[in-house]
Amino acid sequence: MDLLASRASRMKASEIRELLKLLDQPDIISFAGGIPDPALFPSQAIADAYASVLGGPDAGTALQYQVSEGYLPLRRWLAGQMGKLGIACDEHNIFITSGSQQALDYLGKLFLSPGDTALVTWPTYLGALQAFNAYEPRYDRLTPDGGNMTPAAYQAAALAAGGKVKFAYLVPDFANPTGETLNRAQREAVLDLAGELDIAVIEDAAYRALRYDGEGEPPILALDCERSGGIENARTLYCGSFSKILSPGMRVGWVCAPRRVVERLVLMKQASDLHSPSINQLVMHRVSEAVYDGQVEKLIGAYRGRRDALLAALEAEMPDGVSWSRPEGGMFVWLTLPEGSDATALLARSVKEARVAFVPGNAFHADGTGRNTMRMSFTLADERAVGEGVPRLAKLMKG
Amino acid sequence: MDLLASRASRMKASEIRELLKLLDQPDIISFAGGIPDPALFPSQAIADAYASVLGGPDAGTALQYQVSEGYLPLRRWLAGQMGKLGIACDEHNIFITSGSQQALDYLGKLFLSPGDTALVTWPTYLGALQAFNAYEPRYDRLTPDGGNMTPAAYQAAALAAGGKVKFAYLVPDFANPTGETLNRAQREAVLDLAGELDIAVIEDAAYRALRYDGEGEPPILALDCERSGGIENARTLYCGSFSKILSPGMRVGWVCAPRRVVERLVLMKQASDLHSPSINQLVMHRVSEAVYDGQVEKLIGAYRGRRDALLAALEAEMPDGVSWSRPEGGMFVWLTLPEGSDATALLARSVKEARVAFVPGNAFHADGTGRNTMRMSFTLADERAVGEGVPRLAKLMKG
Repeated sequence: MDLLASRASRMKASEIRELLKLLDQPDIISFAGGIPDPALFPSQAIADAYASVLGGPDAGTALQYQVSEGYLPLRRWLAGQMGKLGIACDEHNIFITSGSQQALDYLGKLFLSPGDTALVTWPTYLGALQAFNAYEPRYDRLTPDGGNMTPAAYQAAALAAGGKVKFAYLVPDFANPTGETLNRAQREAVLDLAGELDIAVIEDAAYRALRYDGEGEPPILALDCERSGGIENARTLYCGSFSKILSPGMRVGWVCAPRRVVERLVLMKQASDLHSPSINQLVMHRVSEAVYDGQVEKLIGAYRGRRDALLAALEAEMPDGVSWSRPEGGMFVWLTLPEGSDATALLARSVKEARVAFVPGNAFHADGTGRNTMRMSFTLADERAVGEGVPRLAKLMKG
Repeated sequence: MDLLASRASRMKASEIRELLKLLDQPDIISFAGGIPDPALFPSQAIADAYASVLGGPDAGTALQYQVSEGYLPLRRWLAGQMGKLGIACDEHNIFITSGSQQALDYLGKLFLSPGDTALVTWPTYLGALQAFNAYEPRYDRLTPDGGNMTPAAYQAAALAAGGKVKFAYLVPDFANPTGETLNRAQREAVLDLAGELDIAVIEDAAYRALRYDGEGEPPILALDCERSGGIENARTLYCGSFSKILSPGMRVGWVCAPRRVVERLVLMKQASDLHSPSINQLVMHRVSEAVYDGQVEKLIGAYRGRRDALLAALEAEMPDGVSWSRPEGGMFVWLTLPEGSDATALLARSVKEARVAFVPGNAFHADGTGRNTMRMSFTLADERAVGEGVPRLAKLMKG
């Protein structure tokens, strides 16, 4: 897995650098960056909250060291939010992280020894692979839509590789990169498999609030609590994030988990960075109380229209043999090109000739497959981007 | 070392909780917390900077994802600061961390495999031991004031333990916990030893700017650059922090190192938390440009007086057989009680009977010794604390 680790890391590093460079060039139309639209950040509410925290009696708390588990009022507020999703819990079940990327890193560190097995979908979130790779696992394939291997077969393969199956990681709502969502039966199937293997489930819920149509399914953790009798008996660890709703630059995320897991994460955080910035936690608490629900509504209104426009343009322009996902939320559409196509080569040509960028899908596959797949993000795709970018890309693909 | 890891972690966790509880009790006089005085934070300058960043054209940058190496103008400013300390470098030699604790965690991860040896002083910074413990090293003793083992003896002991000597870690200026500073010859001796062992030196400079009297010595990295011909050939990795000068709650620190090391840290950060909060980096840059030097002067004025008062009170009150360090800067005085004393037992009695708190020194020793030592911080010690607390503690010790 070392090769994969180093390759994925290099791709992400070069990807980010290239993308940032591209975004600086006004004539490039980019569907690449998996980032929220900065024009939609609640900048005024955030500015007001910083001013109010720093101008009030909490200024000292905001600028001082903080406990590793995080700012208590924010943890209580989050416990209330989890309650609304069917997860009865309290502040002892909430652990504040520096973005959900840190949660993935810590959970990798908590569970994985070199040679252990992590179950992930093909494709899956690249940042999760990067976080886990540091702990040198092997990956096996999770197929929540059916066709999973038997528990005994997963175990035998893990044992042959010198370790054990430790967890299943997945993004059940509007996944990065595919945009797809697991239905109720698929969520139950993941819990069945995890129960038979007696492993943890890492539920990455980064996009969960961004549903543009259809009815949401309960979080896997909520289904787990129902089965197991409550969060303290659950095997699912829910990773949440403010990055897609309020601001990624403030780096605030959380884990909702049984208390025994939270306690281990707290010790880990103490040794690794003491705590997430106090001031950002105080501010995130105030901003969330003030504008969270309204902000979700605002984003849904804006991103739904962009998704619809991208899907319509793909329908009108893409050549035969290309198919794509129709996500009910999130940020991404996933395209599958004809067998034998190479999306990395296409990107190089596309940037040069069509001045359109996207992310080739290969990097999201733990086994290095998926060369004929690609990810397009619609969060930054305005009318011009869709109206000009998709036809230019389609023309290149046809020509 | 597992036992040590778990014990140190537990002590720190319980220590922090106990201290926070104690600080809430107005009748406890605490010399325990190694934290800056929140009354001295430049709150207005920080509030102004948040308002200006969020009200200006950089608001989108402040709230958006950022590159893993950190915000370029802050890295350039820090390279200039390092230049003033005799370390010629540029932004490629600066890596932004979430406090210097994260630097210690990443450097531990970069260098240590289980069974490797880290050289540390007895005692040393507890947070460094916690960070390194995660990577399961063994510790050997570094004695910069002379009497180091021969390189061959260090190497043989490391080999016998199943690894190699990987680095020497130290706090050369106003160390936590002892308050002591290495002179020029001691710094050179550390570099000599590191050269013979061909290992890295981790220079923890968290307190460096807080010098209350006497002349400062060059950073070890500056001496290393002189010897080796420049930072790209240096073996020393300098860990800096804004926590003691501007605000610990914003969690901004940095590493100054050869570019090849910075590049590896960037990949590590990308996988572990993507980047430190963008907004705090933009704000720290503005605040530093505006008030850094003045803030250092302000702190020196305040803390010098508190150090002097604490040293005078110790002189007047402490019983025979107790000795202590006379730090030229920083935050701590280190006391040595008569052989056979137990500072942990003393703390329990002191909190109960004298209502005075401090930190027992045992936890700072990688080998579990130092039971007759204790750390007193003077940063929060006002006139009443020193005037009443020290006599009460001394009376208990005499009684």
